[in-house]
Amino acid sequence: MDSDFRSGCPIATTLDLVGDRWTLVLLRDMINGKARFSEFLDSPERITTNVLTDRLGRMEAAGLVTRTAYQDRPRRFAYSLTEKGAALTPVMQAMCRWANAWIPDTWVPPESFMAL
Amino acid sequence: MDSDFRSGCPIATTLDLVGDRWTLVLLRDMINGKARFSEFLDSPERITTNVLTDRLGRMEAAGLVTRTAYQDRPRRFAYSLTEKGAALTPVMQAMCRWANAWIPDTWVPPESFMAL
Repeated sequence: MDSDFRSGCPIATTLDLVGDRWTLVLLRDMINGKARFSEFLDSPERITTNVLTDRLGRMEAAGLVTRTAYQDRPRRFAYSLTEKGAALTPVMQAMCRWANAWIPDTWVPPESFMAL
Repeated sequence: MDSDFRSGCPIATTLDLVGDRWTLVLLRDMINGKARFSEFLDSPERITTNVLTDRLGRMEAAGLVTRTAYQDRPRRFAYSLTEKGAALTPVMQAMCRWANAWIPDTWVPPESFMAL
């Protein structure tokens, strides 16, 4: 067991990696085709640049995303999901079902997302 | 749309309520029959008393749990899941499946939990 985790509980361990308000929002954006820093900043939740930098770094360290440079001077990166990151899709789908059932006026996700 | 939420996105909205490292751990404990402050403190993740007090208050405000006094002098409360809180079970089950598949040595949850 990696000592970075609070326990062997699979719920607690998942939350050690994605238990914050932004990580799964960024995974959502990547599933929706966003890849660049500026695209993540554009999302309606209005993440700040410093939080975005921090989260992308943590997600890369956790193996949820990979980055590739698409430009030099200044160097810029495109981010994409790994298989491990994409495998969190059922967690996000379950959140969608819960919010649609319990929180009024939440957006109904596209069928294409719910069928992934 | 409640203005406390960052957007109408059902993923972002769910994370506005449970997007932290503790809320779903406490829901897990309640599903497992824990109800009292001292029982939550006993869990292997070792939540601190101030974080526990904060999270239980937020969870009650969000309608995820209810509390009933079981003792006076000093007054003590027992917490239990509401229907809205219990409806987050599929989110936790999806987290269990992800962690068991991707994080070595995480505990395999009881079938009774996965079948809820």
